[in-house]
Order: sequence, then C-alpha cells, then structure tokens
Amino acid sequence: MGIVAAADENTAPRRRGRRPGGADTRTSLLDAARAVFAERGYDGATVRVIAERAGVDPAMVNHWFGGKEPLFVAALNLPADPATILGEAVSGDPDELAERILCRLLEVWDSTGGAQFAALLQSIATQDVAAALLREFIARVLVGKVLREVAPDRPELRATLCGTQMFGLAFVRYVLKVEPLASADHATIVSAVAPNLQRYLTGPLP
Amino acid sequence: MGIVAAADENTAPRRRGRRPGGADTRTSLLDAARAVFAERGYDGATVRVIAERAGVDPAMVNHWFGGKEPLFVAALNLPADPATILGEAVSGDPDELAERILCRLLEVWDSTGGAQFAALLQSIATQDVAAALLREFIARVLVGKVLREVAPDRPELRATLCGTQMFGLAFVRYVLKVEPLASADHATIVSAVAPNLQRYLTGPLP
Repeated sequence: MGIVAAADENTAPRRRGRRPGGADTRTSLLDAARAVFAERGYDGATVRVIAERAGVDPAMVNHWFGGKEPLFVAALNLPADPATILGEAVSGDPDELAERILCRLLEVWDSTGGAQFAALLQSIATQDVAAALLREFIARVLVGKVLREVAPDRPELRATLCGTQMFGLAFVRYVLKVEPLASADHATIVSAVAPNLQRYLTGPLP
Repeated sequence: MGIVAAADENTAPRRRGRRPGGADTRTSLLDAARAVFAERGYDGATVRVIAERAGVDPAMVNHWFGGKEPLFVAALNLPADPATILGEAVSGDPDELAERILCRLLEVWDSTGGAQFAALLQSIATQDVAAALLREFIARVLVGKVLREVAPDRPELRATLCGTQMFGLAFVRYVLKVEPLASADHATIVSAVAPNLQRYLTGPLP
C-alpha cells in the first residue's frame, strides 16, 4: 500500500537520461517526489530537483500533476485529497469546523475499513521517509490550509494538537480496534470527539 | 523493545517438562504470558495455562510476580507500571486527574526519549500479539483501575477516548516528531492537552 509500495519501487534500477512522457514518467515522478520531499521538506524540494531525480523534463510535473502542490498530495497516496477535504471544511460556521472535518475523515477512513490507515502507520513505524512526508503534510496542509485561516494564533501548535487527536482516533479505531470505539457509529464518535478537536482548532490555548 | 524482543525469544526451542525456578523460569513465564493473554484475553488466561505453556510449576507465578495481574503488567514491558501510575493519579482532586496523569506519563515517556513508545508502536504495527495485549491493557487498567472509579457512566467509551488522546500525543511527539510539540516542555503540553483529556475522563458525553 501507498508509501510502503513506493519505497520498494525506489529500489528498482533507474534509467539514465530524460525519458518520454509515458505512464512510467508519472510513477518515476511520484517516487522521486517522495524521496525529495522527505529529504528537503516541501519548500526545499523544487520541481527542477524532483524532475532531475526522476530523469524526466521538469515540464512533465505540470503535465501529469498540474504543479508542485498536487504532486506533493499525490505522493502522500491517501484515499482522498486531504487538502481538498480540509479546504472544503473551512467554509461554513467556524464553530462546527471540527464536526465537518471528523465527518469527512471518518467517511474516508471507513471506506477502506481502516486498511489504508493501518498501512500508513506501518510504513511510518518502519520507514523514516513516511514520517518525514507526514510531518511535511501536517505543516503544509493542516497549518497552511486550515489553521492559518481559522486560528491565526499559534497555528503550528494547534496543528500538532489536532494531529494528536486525529491520529489517535484512527489508531485506536483501526489498528488497536478497541471496543466500543472500533464499531461505534459516526454520530457517536463525532459528538464525543468534535468538542475536543474544536478546542484545539479555535479554543483558548495556554 | 519489549514486545518485539519477547516475540523473538518466543521462537527459541522450548524445553519439555517442568523446570526448576531460575532466572529463565521468569523469562519463560513472561513469554508464555504474552502469548496466552493475547490469545485468550485477561480473564481467559489462567495462571495454570500460562505456567503449563511455560513448562513450569504454577506456584512460580506467585514466586516471581506475586500473581496474575502483576504478571500481566510485567508482560506489557513498559518503563513504569501503568497500573501504579494511574492508581496513584486517581487519589486527589478529580478535576485535576487529567493533569496528574499527563504529568506522570510525560515523565515516563521522556525518560527513554520516547524510544520505548516508538518500539511499542512498531511492534503493534507489525504484530497482532502486541495489539491484543494493549487492548487488554486498556480494558483492564484504564477501565478497571481508573474510569470505573471516577466516571461510572460509560467507562469503556471513556477509556477508548482517553486512549485516542494519549496514543496520539505520544505518536506525534515521539514518532512523527512534529514541532513545536516534539520539543515542547511539559507545562505547555499539560496545559494544552489536560482539558481535553479531562473531558474524556469526567465531562459530559453524548
């Protein structure tokens, strides 16, 4: 799954020189993007460096992904684009932001029975590259897209606190599978967890 | 390490018959306990079955551990006895319970620089036996020792919700290592997280 599989593909021998723009160009760009984003962070990873690592023309990034940010999101290989989910959730009553985020996350996670999250966790626990990509994800998507807009004070701390609640929820529900949370319906989870997530998003912090 | 190392030891050839009570009796009992608790749960795992699996006399469980519950806690191989930590935290102002639990957990986790938690997570992500032991831990220690006392309504749901916050915090701080949470001091974390944990412990739930 996802990042695990990508890392394995990375060990395949790399052809030299620029390649024509076929389906394997897309795969090469994804592999190169995972490696370069993890090594240099989002800001340090330029389209030029990623294309060079993939051995393709930099114009192929725009051709296949439409830019650096969509390439980054594709490299994370999540079941739905979290930038889109969180971006959509931001519109609407800010006091119900946590509720909207949790509803969408539960839908996405449950759609693979939690398998995608479990695979992601396994790759994080065993590969530093996956942890580095997720750190970047929290910084770029959670802080950049959501928190700077809804809670301009201490967005970085808020993003990590939101991360603790969201990862912890997925971990206990899909990996540890502890009842009654493992089979609780969405309404129960949202009403139990949303007030806590909302405090991290917009409540008073120390 | 802990559960990972223990699982490796499990693959060592097992001698037949009862053994004298030496240091390897203790190790055999721990290995057997991890396997039997994971297979049968806490209630189904009897001292007799564990001793039989270890190939030692059942009296050795009392001799080395003082009973089934201390054996279970030892089998989890945590840096400090969580049953003791949580048991101690219960005495005192119930409105500051979350604060006391978080202070002690951060001390314990930080004492190994988070390494113990990272190893535990890795074993959970890759071995079902570790997840099963932790499920039992949440049910026995969190529900049995803490929540039935402080919040008799819905103790099982509360325990899993507390679990989401505690695991998520350790995950983001020690495994993902996202700043500013990764190097935040204890006072900052406790004042940011304690109100949320306290709501799961004693606040109103749906």
